[in-house]
Amino acid sequence: MTIEARLTELGITLPKAAAPVASYTPVTLHGGLAHLSGQLPFIDGELVTGKLGDSVSLEQGTAAARACGLMILAQLVEAGIALDRVERVVKLGAFVSSTSDFTDQPKVANGASELMFDVFGEIGRHSRSAVGVPVLPLNAAVEVDAIIAVSAA
Amino acid sequence: MTIEARLTELGITLPKAAAPVASYTPVTLHGGLAHLSGQLPFIDGELVTGKLGDSVSLEQGTAAARACGLMILAQLVEAGIALDRVERVVKLGAFVSSTSDFTDQPKVANGASELMFDVFGEIGRHSRSAVGVPVLPLNAAVEVDAIIAVSAA
Amino acid sequence: MTIEARLTELGITLPKAAAPVASYTPVTLHGGLAHLSGQLPFIDGELVTGKLGDSVSLEQGTAAARACGLMILAQLVEAGIALDRVERVVKLGAFVSSTSDFTDQPKVANGASELMFDVFGEIGRHSRSAVGVPVLPLNAAVEVDAIIAVSAA
Repeated sequence: MTIEARLTELGITLPKAAAPVASYTPVTLHGGLAHLSGQLPFIDGELVTGKLGDSVSLEQGTAAARACGLMILAQLVEAGIALDRVERVVKLGAFVSSTSDFTDQPKVANGASELMFDVFGEIGRHSRSAVGVPVLPLNAAVEVDAIIAVSAA
Repeated sequence: MTIEARLTELGITLPKAAAPVASYTPVTLHGGLAHLSGQLPFIDGELVTGKLGDSVSLEQGTAAARACGLMILAQLVEAGIALDRVERVVKLGAFVSSTSDFTDQPKVANGASELMFDVFGEIGRHSRSAVGVPVLPLNAAVEVDAIIAVSAA
Repeated sequence: MTIEARLTELGITLPKAAAPVASYTPVTLHGGLAHLSGQLPFIDGELVTGKLGDSVSLEQGTAAARACGLMILAQLVEAGIALDRVERVVKLGAFVSSTSDFTDQPKVANGASELMFDVFGEIGRHSRSAVGVPVLPLNAAVEVDAIIAVSAA
C-alpha cells in the first residue's frame, strides 16, 4: 500500500506546508537524511498556543504534537520528497511549552510519535527526546523537529 | 581491552535498560549512526527528580547526568549493539532541569561526558550542547540524548 | 571566490575559538558530518549574558545569535576544517534564554541563520529549530549548535 493510500485509509489530509517564519528552510536533504526544521502545530489553519499545565490541556497538547507531525509530513512532500521514499523515521525532538510543574511531556509528544507509527508502521518507530521549555516561537504549545532517512529519488 | 573489561576495571555495572515511557524506541540505527532517545537518570533503580538551583545539588546533578550516560550504554547493549562496536561518541545533548538563575549546566553535563571519556578513551570525546529547561518528563533532574557512530555487526 | 575572500568582503573577522567550558570537544567529524557543540555568544571577547524579554533587547539577542554563528565558523577552522570544505549547513539548533512571555525566538535565531546564508550562499540554507529556555550556561543569552556537511580534506 502506498503511504498516500494509507493516509486516506486513516482519514488524514495533510495541511498546507507552512512557510518558514524566518531565514531558514523547512527541510535539508544530505546523504540520505532529511533534517526537518522545528514545526509548529496548526489545526484548521490556526496555531495552537499556550502552555501545558496552564491554558492547554493534555488532550489539546497531544493533538498539537500530532499536528506538528502532520506538518513534518507536509513539509517533506512540499520539498519534493514523496512519503513512499521514507526508509526510517530516525529521531523526533519534541519541545513542549510547559509550566514548571507539568511533567507529562512524553504523553504530549506521543501525539507525534503515534502518528509516525500509524502512517509508516515499523519504519515509523523512532528515537525521541521530549523536554519542557518555558516558551516557544509565536507562543506555540509544541514544536517538533525530525531526522528522517529517505531513499534516493 | 574490551569495553566490558574496561567497565569492570572502572567498577561499573550497567543499569537495567529502562523501558520507553511512551511510544518510541530507545535506539534507532541507520547508516552507521545510533540515535539514542533522551535518557533519564536512574540511580539504584530510583529516578533522580527535582531541579538544579533548588532541591538538587550540583553534585547530585552531576551524578544524575552520569546515570543518564550509563543508561545510554545500557540501551545500546539492550538494542543488540555491543559496546565494542562504538567507533565514536559523536554528540551528546544534555537538558538540565534548572531554576532560572542556575547557570552551571556544563558542570552537570560533565557527569555524562566524563563517563564517555572514561569508558571509551579518545573515541569517547564528543561534541555537546547543554541547556537549562524548566521541567523534564516525570520531573527528572537531567535528560541526555546521544548520537553514536557504530561499526557494522 | 574562496570563503576567506567572502569573509573579507563582508568585513568579518572570525573570533578566537573559545575553549570548551567543560569535558567535551567543540567539533566532531564523522562520515562527512561535522557536529558542532553549542556555542555561546562572545562579542569583542565578552560573553553576552541575560534573557530576552528582560535585560537583552531583540537587537542585542540577534547580534548574540550572529556571534554564536561566527564562533561555529571559528571552531570549524580551529578544528582544521577549512571553510571552503563546507558542502551544506544542514541544521542549526538555537536555544534562546527567554522570559516566559518572549516569543520572538525565530527573529533572534535569524542572527545566526542570515550569517550562514551571507557567508555560504545557497549551501548556507539550513533547517533549524529555535526554542526558548529559562537559562543557559554562564547565563549566556543564546546558544547555537550545528550540523555541517563537509567534503574530505
